Amino acid sequence: MPTAGILVIGNEILSGKVTDINSPYLCEQLREIGVDVERILTIPDVLETIASEVKAMSESYDYVFTSGGIGPTHDDLTIEGVAAAFGRSVEVDAKLERMLRSVLGDDLSEGQLKLATVPAGASLIDSDDKWFPLVVVENVYIFPGIPEGLRRKFESARDRFEGVPYVLKRVYVKRHETEIVETLNALLEEFPDLVLGSYPKIRESSYRVLLTLESRDENYVQRALDRLLADLSDGAIHKVE
Amino acid sequence: MPTAGILVIGNEILSGKVTDINSPYLCEQLREIGVDVERILTIPDVLETIASEVKAMSESYDYVFTSGGIGPTHDDLTIEGVAAAFGRSVEVDAKLERMLRSVLGDDLSEGQLKLATVPAGASLIDSDDKWFPLVVVENVYIFPGIPEGLRRKFESARDRFEGVPYVLKRVYVKRHETEIVETLNALLEEFPDLVLGSYPKIRESSYRVLLTLESRDENYVQRALDRLLADLSDGAIHKVE
Repeated sequence: MPTAGILVIGNEILSGKVTDINSPYLCEQLREIGVDVERILTIPDVLETIASEVKAMSESYDYVFTSGGIGPTHDDLTIEGVAAAFGRSVEVDAKLERMLRSVLGDDLSEGQLKLATVPAGASLIDSDDKWFPLVVVENVYIFPGIPEGLRRKFESARDRFEGVPYVLKRVYVKRHETEIVETLNALLEEFPDLVLGSYPKIRESSYRVLLTLESRDENYVQRALDRLLADLSDGAIHKVE
Repeated sequence: MPTAGILVIGNEILSGKVTDINSPYLCEQLREIGVDVERILTIPDVLETIASEVKAMSESYDYVFTSGGIGPTHDDLTIEGVAAAFGRSVEVDAKLERMLRSVLGDDLSEGQLKLATVPAGASLIDSDDKWFPLVVVENVYIFPGIPEGLRRKFESARDRFEGVPYVLKRVYVKRHETEIVETLNALLEEFPDLVLGSYPKIRESSYRVLLTLESRDENYVQRALDRLLADLSDGAIHKVE
């Protein structure tokens, strides 16, 4: 099954000025299409750090998604960092430069020209809108930090990442986690490949624990669910979804 | 200045079922008291991964904050992982066990006893409420994943992490980022130690870019601000905070 790492780049996240809503979005989307996100890493706008982490993630996962560090200013270092990760130079892409000149006029400053700069040999995937294309180097997909731009670009590329989705069942339980832990352990012994999550809720009156049962095999998760429901007493279950 | 790494532990984050609101909270709090967060890493509930990442972060930063993986069930592996990171065993803490028996009764299951288990030699910091104390091993602070619990425990320990806070100035600019990039580069040349952020906003009518100027030296940031405001034309500024 395809795996992915997400690399969030930006001092503004680490300093608490901006909340990263891109990695939750990507996690949700990728889960839906069956790609396993194995790691999310947030790092500062430092060229060497970006380069070494992109390299490490690219070697470890099928896909790497970067978020942030794209733009004309001093702290926009992602393009250079991804290039360095693969020992590539950066170059001004002719098509991007034309687009840029049509928007900003013919007299581009050095900073403005940065917007047309990509790692040498990068692929550009057209988004179906006026925005810049998605830049791809090897298995690294370079997304902007602005959420609207990231979403638009992800949607336009989503079909490339199809995996096998999980089937998810939710069981809302009216018991404390400590009261059902033996039942859960017995369930996992019988269904060792079940992906089982147990999430206590406080300040919630109708249930105390949300259990999630997942598998890529619908039949397997259904059998596990049946076993769990048989093991829990009727009064213990708030609802099943 | 003190540095920190945040380690978020939990499949539920990576699979998009739960949004991590703990690391944004910690980043904001730590920034306020002047501790530099250098990395946020989210990993699955896998013992070896927890152990190796705790070890790496503990060696790299002054403080490590873990979030999640605390509880009675199969996927609660943080205590064991932190112990393994330092080559320690785990042990049942006598005081915690007493607290647990007073709540759950004398007949504790193995899963329930996990709640009283800590890495050998851990320090326990009392929170000023009925909740379990904060468990500390070396420079690693072990927080629960439930946001209410994390916040309560952080507040009770906050005084331990005092650094030197940054002074932050915000300038809201009515120009595109591409129009002010040369001004920003000139500013950084004159004030190389300035922490300067530039964040474009779309779908915002009153300004186009938020600039953040930061330094731990109030005088330095004020001089940089004065220079920036002198360099930008009056009509370019929406407001300064």
